[in-house]
Amino acid sequence: MRWSSALIPTLKETPADAVAPSHILLMRAGMIRQLGAGAYTYLPLGLRVLKKAEAIIREEMDAAGAFELLMPALQPIELWKESGRFETFGDLLMKLTISGGHHMALGPTHEEVVTDLVRDLISSYKQLPITLYQIQTKFRDEPRPRFGILRTREFLMKDAYSFDADVDQLNASYDAMYEAYCRTFDRCGLPYVVVEAESGPIGGDASHEFMVPCSTGEDKVIQCLACGYAANQEKAEVGAVADAPARTIAADAPAYEAVRTPGRKTIRDVCAFLKVAEPTSGKLLVYLADGKPVAILLRGDHEANEAKVRRAFGATTLAPADADSIQKATGAPIGFLGPVAIQIPLIVDKAVAAMETIVVGGNEVDVHLTGVVPGRDFKLDRLADLRNADDGDPCPRCGAAMVVKAGLEIGHVFKLGTKYSKAMGASYLDEKGVEIPIIMGCYGIGVNRIVAAAVEAGHDANGIIWPLNLAPYQVAVVPLSVKDAAVMAAAESIEKKLVAAGYDVILDDRDQRPGFKFKDVDLIGVPLRVVIGERGLKEGKIEIKWRHETEAQSLPLETAGDSILAELKAAEEKHHNTCLVNRSKREAAKSS
Amino acid sequence: MRWSSALIPTLKETPADAVAPSHILLMRAGMIRQLGAGAYTYLPLGLRVLKKAEAIIREEMDAAGAFELLMPALQPIELWKESGRFETFGDLLMKLTISGGHHMALGPTHEEVVTDLVRDLISSYKQLPITLYQIQTKFRDEPRPRFGILRTREFLMKDAYSFDADVDQLNASYDAMYEAYCRTFDRCGLPYVVVEAESGPIGGDASHEFMVPCSTGEDKVIQCLACGYAANQEKAEVGAVADAPARTIAADAPAYEAVRTPGRKTIRDVCAFLKVAEPTSGKLLVYLADGKPVAILLRGDHEANEAKVRRAFGATTLAPADADSIQKATGAPIGFLGPVAIQIPLIVDKAVAAMETIVVGGNEVDVHLTGVVPGRDFKLDRLADLRNADDGDPCPRCGAAMVVKAGLEIGHVFKLGTKYSKAMGASYLDEKGVEIPIIMGCYGIGVNRIVAAAVEAGHDANGIIWPLNLAPYQVAVVPLSVKDAAVMAAAESIEKKLVAAGYDVILDDRDQRPGFKFKDVDLIGVPLRVVIGERGLKEGKIEIKWRHETEAQSLPLETAGDSILAELKAAEEKHHNTCLVNRSKREAAKSS
Repeated sequence: MRWSSALIPTLKETPADAVAPSHILLMRAGMIRQLGAGAYTYLPLGLRVLKKAEAIIREEMDAAGAFELLMPALQPIELWKESGRFETFGDLLMKLTISGGHHMALGPTHEEVVTDLVRDLISSYKQLPITLYQIQTKFRDEPRPRFGILRTREFLMKDAYSFDADVDQLNASYDAMYEAYCRTFDRCGLPYVVVEAESGPIGGDASHEFMVPCSTGEDKVIQCLACGYAANQEKAEVGAVADAPARTIAADAPAYEAVRTPGRKTIRDVCAFLKVAEPTSGKLLVYLADGKPVAILLRGDHEANEAKVRRAFGATTLAPADADSIQKATGAPIGFLGPVAIQIPLIVDKAVAAMETIVVGGNEVDVHLTGVVPGRDFKLDRLADLRNADDGDPCPRCGAAMVVKAGLEIGHVFKLGTKYSKAMGASYLDEKGVEIPIIMGCYGIGVNRIVAAAVEAGHDANGIIWPLNLAPYQVAVVPLSVKDAAVMAAAESIEKKLVAAGYDVILDDRDQRPGFKFKDVDLIGVPLRVVIGERGLKEGKIEIKWRHETEAQSLPLETAGDSILAELKAAEEKHHNTCLVNRSKREAAKSS
Repeated sequence: MRWSSALIPTLKETPADAVAPSHILLMRAGMIRQLGAGAYTYLPLGLRVLKKAEAIIREEMDAAGAFELLMPALQPIELWKESGRFETFGDLLMKLTISGGHHMALGPTHEEVVTDLVRDLISSYKQLPITLYQIQTKFRDEPRPRFGILRTREFLMKDAYSFDADVDQLNASYDAMYEAYCRTFDRCGLPYVVVEAESGPIGGDASHEFMVPCSTGEDKVIQCLACGYAANQEKAEVGAVADAPARTIAADAPAYEAVRTPGRKTIRDVCAFLKVAEPTSGKLLVYLADGKPVAILLRGDHEANEAKVRRAFGATTLAPADADSIQKATGAPIGFLGPVAIQIPLIVDKAVAAMETIVVGGNEVDVHLTGVVPGRDFKLDRLADLRNADDGDPCPRCGAAMVVKAGLEIGHVFKLGTKYSKAMGASYLDEKGVEIPIIMGCYGIGVNRIVAAAVEAGHDANGIIWPLNLAPYQVAVVPLSVKDAAVMAAAESIEKKLVAAGYDVILDDRDQRPGFKFKDVDLIGVPLRVVIGERGLKEGKIEIKWRHETEAQSLPLETAGDSILAELKAAEEKHHNTCLVNRSKREAAKSS
């Protein structure tokens, strides 16, 4: 491809409102343009990257034995009512009414449609296991689209669904997808971590997320660098502090005191007013668990983890109680709630049980209690891990201090179980003719997010640094003086050789200053730059430079084509070896 | 691919409600399954065909120098208001409201979005000409989806848009797309005809349609087999009957008579009642042309062509008048309208001018007039071609009798002009710095329709007959006894050789009777079948059979692999030559 006849509208300025590096650089590199909020057009260069990610995903899905199909985006609302997700998905589901008064949804995911297909296609255990996938456009009524192509209302997903006869088959299907995801992201050159995750609105009972650590990431990943444990903050357990002594209640501890804290309703205000540290305070939160009021007590500086709270109460649904419900259930106003003499079910976070004394609300307006002793002034009979793990918390596996990183989710695998197959009647007949619900799994990759994550993980002040396998062009051949016939001939000869070997090459034939051209080549992130100049040519030399390195190398012109091919092959081999190492690490971890 | 591990759920029965051959056979061959009205899932085999069509289109678009991009399906309604199409597209446009109260459309086409992009990207004549395309899912609120994947609410389109500085550039861009379409459909092996077409709701001033003649086609194509003239019935002109004598009004023709025709309102009823032939009657139709009432007079058995009527009156909009407007404008009731003494503008179809006398409505209830003489009893000063061309009508180019065929539209090219660029402000600065609206063209291919058209044009009682380039698998290798090791070894060896040469091969490894397997292979339409049996093997022979031929050929086992490759190459070469012949015919036609 000649640069002069390509469509690469690079921008000098950072677009207004863009903060995420991937947003800024994909715009500046002429790869995407905005149509509206959460809606982007992929220009030729951006589309090349998207298609390369798509091709890698497809190859790995096919290699894992999954069948590709293509399901409609427009889905009958009835299917969402049948599965019970019409309610739970809520406003994120885009809805419309079409001619004939039919109510439709624009699929944000396809569990319902694929279950509808499978209940029609599959009837016997002989047809199982089977995994189906598609690479298809999804819709989601995102209230706040942001970060360029990271959170949009329309996006390309690879979604796969496994159908198994029993749990062993499910585990094998899940492992095959897990491994295919690792290979996919390895090949894409992404520095990902796999974390244990909550399953969220999709439902189900086991899941892992594939995360790329980066500042733009909207998820928080908790990692133990000692043993390798990693989980989404929503899911991460907090380990016990092994060496904390068993606490006994001091016999001579004075009784708690009620103090006036007029208008001080937040932990920060109360602690500042009483001149105590936040970690010595407690906060009582009231929820509706399956509609019934319940309370939890956390250390003042900790954050509640609603998934843990829901599980602790054995509830199906959990929502924060509103002021009215709280007043009605506890007789106390928000801001002054406390555990002493509370009449609704209370579960206390483990961290509170380790505290000697604690400042809590007094259950009446403008009153807090100081010197409250856990286990004496309120019961500790129901303890649980109820909070988000945080920086420095002990690892649940090895007890070492964990770290928190921002992470960008690029893939997610779930064991769904029989949620959809039971609700929608997708079953098979076993060898004895008994009808059994099919066990399902579902597996998603955000194709656009691979593009964005690669930029988030690979860029510098000058622009994007694409991994070799995703780069729109792997090599940029830059003749410095396009009017010099010898220079152009040398450039074209190298281009030809590389193209013949299967590489995507862009030849920057623009009649511009070298600095101008180098800036653009760096901005669009071409991994390898080949420079051919008049002066070098006279000395029989050309120059190559890897985008991720600072130094250029000089090569003899005569063997330049072969040397460049050798460079590329070496880089591919190095990457391939890294993938193999990652793979054997995963296998070692699995067998240990 | 082994058949036993593929997902090919063939059906024995014709699905209820299916009438179109492509609908019946794609369902029966396990290529598609219905989700709901106008919504189909592509199963792996169907998706393979769709992807092959897509790949051919992409190659030809790239070869024609068009840039691929990907625009969102969700489009802001504001853009449709800006272009003025919000009204004209009407109910076919799917609309929804998303969070924040934003009104959106699901794109049935992308003129607005691409013009919005281009007014941002392009500012100088130096950036023109340029053609952009995408292969993307479209939505259309089809009130009556039908014929399987032929008319659905969601479909895959290749839509391209050209942007040019002047008419010469436009013509060159249009020709390049026209030629790319011919190559695409040639490569797909479709028996298409190119016809002149009306431009419809897209607007613009020149267009051609690419049609595959087949009984399911919803369009009517008028063809002159003598000179090659072809047009959509909506567009086709009616030639003058060269040898018709100039008609003079007989001086002694009796005056017309008013006769009572109680309750006879249709041409059929009136002619039966009066015992005259329909071609001796006339029908007067009233329209609102840009809101004003106008009338046309046609021969009773002819059909009005609204596009011609609209142009004859020089109107922008045209709609049939309702009973009230007709009564108000003419004072006469529907069913009894006639040209005599009518007070609103009247244009008479040329065919009427050739009639001696004519039966028409009397402009009062239950009255018709017989013996009315055109030119005497009403004026013939405004004559035009106002009707649909029909079987036997003279060709407008050579005068030979034309024929009508049903046709299925698979592609459409338009010269749009400046409709969108003017409405939306997409302009460029010319060499003198003058701002000029960009001239546009648009070009669509229905990817799903290629799949359906290939089946409509290629099938027999046993199933589909795929063209080689679209077939999901080009070769089916069928070992007759899968338990015989020698048979399987021979089958696998042939499979391996063909796969190595780049062919898509399915090996039918199912332990089933030969007849059962042949039926399935025929049903899914694999072009070449290779059969390996125990008996043949003992004689050192295998058998091959083309799907479109009736006789099988016997080949020596020893050289079977090479012979099959030679057969395939010969078929490809034959197809390639047909494409070349088509191309030179097109070029000859162009230069003549």
